[in-house]
Amino acid sequence: MTFRQHLHRQLDPEAWPGRGLSPLNWAVFCLIWLSIVFGVAATEPSVAGWLGGRLLLIDHLLLAVFAVEYAGRLWVCGLNPKFRGARGFFRYLVTPASIADLVVILPLLLPTPSTWMLIFRLLRILRLLRLAAMPHIHAAMREFYEALAAKRFELIFTLFLGVILILLSSTTLYLVERQIQPEIFGSIPKAMWWSVVTFTTVGYGDAVPVSTLGKFCAGLYAVLGLGLVAMLTGVFASALSHAAELHDKNKSVD
Amino acid sequence: MTFRQHLHRQLDPEAWPGRGLSPLNWAVFCLIWLSIVFGVAATEPSVAGWLGGRLLLIDHLLLAVFAVEYAGRLWVCGLNPKFRGARGFFRYLVTPASIADLVVILPLLLPTPSTWMLIFRLLRILRLLRLAAMPHIHAAMREFYEALAAKRFELIFTLFLGVILILLSSTTLYLVERQIQPEIFGSIPKAMWWSVVTFTTVGYGDAVPVSTLGKFCAGLYAVLGLGLVAMLTGVFASALSHAAELHDKNKSVD
Amino acid sequence: MTFRQHLHRQLDPEAWPGRGLSPLNWAVFCLIWLSIVFGVAATEPSVAGWLGGRLLLIDHLLLAVFAVEYAGRLWVCGLNPKFRGARGFFRYLVTPASIADLVVILPLLLPTPSTWMLIFRLLRILRLLRLAAMPHIHAAMREFYEALAAKRFELIFTLFLGVILILLSSTTLYLVERQIQPEIFGSIPKAMWWSVVTFTTVGYGDAVPVSTLGKFCAGLYAVLGLGLVAMLTGVFASALSHAAELHDKNKSVD
Amino acid sequence: MTFRQHLHRQLDPEAWPGRGLSPLNWAVFCLIWLSIVFGVAATEPSVAGWLGGRLLLIDHLLLAVFAVEYAGRLWVCGLNPKFRGARGFFRYLVTPASIADLVVILPLLLPTPSTWMLIFRLLRILRLLRLAAMPHIHAAMREFYEALAAKRFELIFTLFLGVILILLSSTTLYLVERQIQPEIFGSIPKAMWWSVVTFTTVGYGDAVPVSTLGKFCAGLYAVLGLGLVAMLTGVFASALSHAAELHDKNKSVD
Repeated sequence: MTFRQHLHRQLDPEAWPGRGLSPLNWAVFCLIWLSIVFGVAATEPSVAGWLGGRLLLIDHLLLAVFAVEYAGRLWVCGLNPKFRGARGFFRYLVTPASIADLVVILPLLLPTPSTWMLIFRLLRILRLLRLAAMPHIHAAMREFYEALAAKRFELIFTLFLGVILILLSSTTLYLVERQIQPEIFGSIPKAMWWSVVTFTTVGYGDAVPVSTLGKFCAGLYAVLGLGLVAMLTGVFASALSHAAELHDKNKSVD
Repeated sequence: MTFRQHLHRQLDPEAWPGRGLSPLNWAVFCLIWLSIVFGVAATEPSVAGWLGGRLLLIDHLLLAVFAVEYAGRLWVCGLNPKFRGARGFFRYLVTPASIADLVVILPLLLPTPSTWMLIFRLLRILRLLRLAAMPHIHAAMREFYEALAAKRFELIFTLFLGVILILLSSTTLYLVERQIQPEIFGSIPKAMWWSVVTFTTVGYGDAVPVSTLGKFCAGLYAVLGLGLVAMLTGVFASALSHAAELHDKNKSVD
Repeated sequence: MTFRQHLHRQLDPEAWPGRGLSPLNWAVFCLIWLSIVFGVAATEPSVAGWLGGRLLLIDHLLLAVFAVEYAGRLWVCGLNPKFRGARGFFRYLVTPASIADLVVILPLLLPTPSTWMLIFRLLRILRLLRLAAMPHIHAAMREFYEALAAKRFELIFTLFLGVILILLSSTTLYLVERQIQPEIFGSIPKAMWWSVVTFTTVGYGDAVPVSTLGKFCAGLYAVLGLGLVAMLTGVFASALSHAAELHDKNKSVD
Repeated sequence: MTFRQHLHRQLDPEAWPGRGLSPLNWAVFCLIWLSIVFGVAATEPSVAGWLGGRLLLIDHLLLAVFAVEYAGRLWVCGLNPKFRGARGFFRYLVTPASIADLVVILPLLLPTPSTWMLIFRLLRILRLLRLAAMPHIHAAMREFYEALAAKRFELIFTLFLGVILILLSSTTLYLVERQIQPEIFGSIPKAMWWSVVTFTTVGYGDAVPVSTLGKFCAGLYAVLGLGLVAMLTGVFASALSHAAELHDKNKSVD
C-alpha cells in the first residue's frame, strides 16, 4: 500500500474502514475547533495584547497546516471512484466541502487587511460541514429534513401567522404609544423590535409599553405569541414523532 | 379563448390548470407584500420625510392597481360556475376575499384623512387571506383546525387554569408588595401586568417584586407558570400528532 | 311539574336534559365572573374612588344573590337521588362545590373588616369549580390527570433535577459573585432568585452576574436550564399523546 | 432475626420487603434535605448571626449522625449477597453512593476551614443519588436515558446548530455594535453573553443592541433561536413518545 493510499484512507471519510472518523480527520476536526476558539478569543483586546506579534504567527501556522491538508486532499481525491480522472478532479474542486477548504486558506494566497482577516478566521466554521458526511450525523440531518419537508406547509402557515401577529401588534402599539414613547414606538419598524422581542419571549425590557391601554394590548399579544410558540413547538414535535414512526415502519417491513 | 377567459384563468386560483399560483396572482401577491412593507416603512419619519409628496403618489398608484384588479375580478368571476348569473355575482361580492379587496380600495372612493390612511394601508394584510385558497396552505389550516377542535376542551381547561393562576398570582403579589411598590403592585389590575409578563416567560423586568416574601411567591408562581406553558405546548404537540395519525390511517384505508 | 322540580332542573347540572349548562347556571356562571372582575377592579384606587359608597352596595347585592342561590340549591338538592334524605342533605353540604358556595357568602353572616372583604371577593373564584362538573371539561381534566399520573415518576425526576440545578447554580453564583454584588448574590437564598428567574427563562434582569466567570457559569446553567424546560415539555407532550392513543384504542375495542 | 439483620433490612433498599423506602431510609432522606436547607440558609448573614455558635454545633451533630449511619451501612453491607466477604466489602466501599456518604462526613475526619465547610455542606446533595435505587425513579431514569440515547445524534446535531448560531450571532453583533457599545459587544466572547441570553430566551436586558442594524440582526437571530428551542423540545418530545411506544409494544408481546 503506497503512502498516497494510506493518506486517502485517512482523509476520505468514505475510504475509512473503521467506524466514525479516522485519526487524521479527528485531528483536523480538533484543529478546526481550536482555530475557531483562537479566532474568537483574539477579538478580546486583553488576549490580543498578550499575544502581540504571536497572533499573526499562529494565524499563518494554522493557514499553512490547512493549506498542506488541502493539497493532500487534492492529491488523493482521485483514488475515490467518484472523483477519478481530470473531470472527477474538477467535480471534487467544486464540492461544497472543497470550496470551504479553499476559502479558509485564501488569506494565504492574497494579502488580507486585518479587519477581513477576522471574517476569514470565522469562516473556518464552514469546514465543519465535513461532519455532515459522518453516517450518523447524516442520518440525523436526513430525519430533520424529512420531518420538516413533510410539514413544510404547516411551518409556512405558522410563520405566516407570526408575521401577521408582528404586523398587527407593532401597529397597535405604534398607535397607542407613539406619543408617549416616540423613541421606542415612534414608527412601526421601531415598534417591531418590541414585537419580535415579545413574541420570542426574550423580553429584554428596553422596549416596554407604559400606558394602561398599551400594557393591556401587550399582555393580550404576549399570550397570543405564547400560543404561537406552543404551536411551532407542537409542529416540530409532531413532525419528528411522525418521521420516527415512518422510519420504524419501514424497518419492520424490511 | 377570449381575453376574459385568459384573465379568469390567471385571476381565479380554482381555474388555474398548473400547480400553485398563476403568474398574475404571484404578481398581485408580491404587490400586496410590497404595499404592506411600504405602509410600514412610511410611518418612519425619516422615510416619510425623504419620500415627501411621492408618498401620496405611490399610495394612489397602489390603490389604482388594486382597483383595476378588483374590477378585473368582478368582470371574470361569472366564468366560475359557483358565481354564475346575477345572484352569483352578489354571492361573489360578499365572499370574505372580495370584501377585503373592496375595503382596501375604499380610500380611493372616499376622501380619507391621513391618520385613517395608515389603517387602510395596513388593512391590505387582509388581502393575504386569498393565500388560504391555495390547496396546500388550505390543507395545513384544516389540519390545525381539526387538531385544535379535537382538543378544544383541553385548551379551554388550560386557558381556564391560566386565568386562575393570573388571578391568584396578581392577588398574592398585590397583598405582599402594594405598600412597597404602589406604582407597580398598587392594585390587582396593575399586578396583572406582572403576572402576564411572568407567565408568558417574557420577563421585561419593569415589574419585579423586591421583598423576600414577594420574590419567594413570584418564584413559585414562575415555576407553576412554566408547568402551564409546558402543558399548553404538550396539548398542541399531542393534538397535531393525533391529527397526523388519523390522516395517515384514513389514507391507508383508501 | 312543580316550581321546585323546575328549579332543580336548572340548578343541578346532572338534571339538565339539554347539552352544556342550563340558562340559570349560565347566568350564575356569568355573575361569578362579573363579581370577580368587580373584585379585581375595586382594588384600583381610581375605580374605588369613583364607586365610593356604591362599592359596598354592589358587594351586598352580589352577596344577597349568591345567598338566595345557595338557599335554592339547598332546597332542591334532595331531588337528586344522590342527596336524598337527611343524610343526603349533609352529604351535599360537605361537597367541595357547596362549601365554596357557603364560603363566598360568609361575609353576609359575619361582620367582615374591609381588608378581609378583598379576600372573600376573590374567593368567588372557587365557585368556578362547578365548571368541572360539565361532562366535556370533566373529560379533559380526567385526561390530564391520567396522563400526568402515568408519567408521575418522570415528572418527579424532572422536578428533582430542577431542584438540584437550582441548588448547584445558586451555590456557584454565590461563590463567584458574593463579593461583587452582595445585595444580589450575598447568600444562597438570595442567589436562588436569580436561579429561578433564569431556569424558567423569565429573565427579569434585576439579578445578573457581572464578572466574566459569573457570566460564563450563568450561560452554561442557562443552556442546561433550557434543556430541562425542553425535557419537561417533552414529558407533558408524550404523556398527553400516550393518553390520547390509549383512549383511541379503548374506543376502537368497544 | 438479629439487630444486624433488622438494620440491614432498614438500610439496604434492596432488602426492604415493602414498597418504596423503609422508615429509616425515609428519615435519612428527610435529614439530608434538612441538612441541605440548613446549609443554604446558613449562608444568609441574618440567619448565621442569629445562629451564632449553634451553627457549628448543628453542623457537628449532622456530621455525627451521618457518620453513625455510614458506619451502620458498612457493618450491614455484607448481608447483601452482592457485597459478601472482604472483596465484597471493598466493592461496596467504591460504589458511588458509598463514596458520596464518605465525602459528606470528611469534615469530621479532617479539620476544615470555614469556606470549605460550605462546599461540604452542599455536597450532601450527592447523597440524594441513593434515590436512584428506588425502582420507580430508576425506571423513569432508564426511560429518559434510553430515549436520549436513541436520539443522541439528533441532539448532537441540534447542539451543533446551537453552537454555530451562537458563533454567527455573536460575530455579527460584534461587527455591528463594537464601536457603539464597546463594554458589551467589544469582543466576540463578550457578545456571546448576549447570544446565550437571547437564544435561551432568558433576555435579561443587560446586553441589548441599540443601532437599527443591530436590532434587525438581533431580531432575526432571536427568531432563529426560537426555532432551535422548538426543535430541541420537539426532539425531547418525540424521543420520549417513541420510548413510551416501544415500552408498550414490549409489554403487549409479553
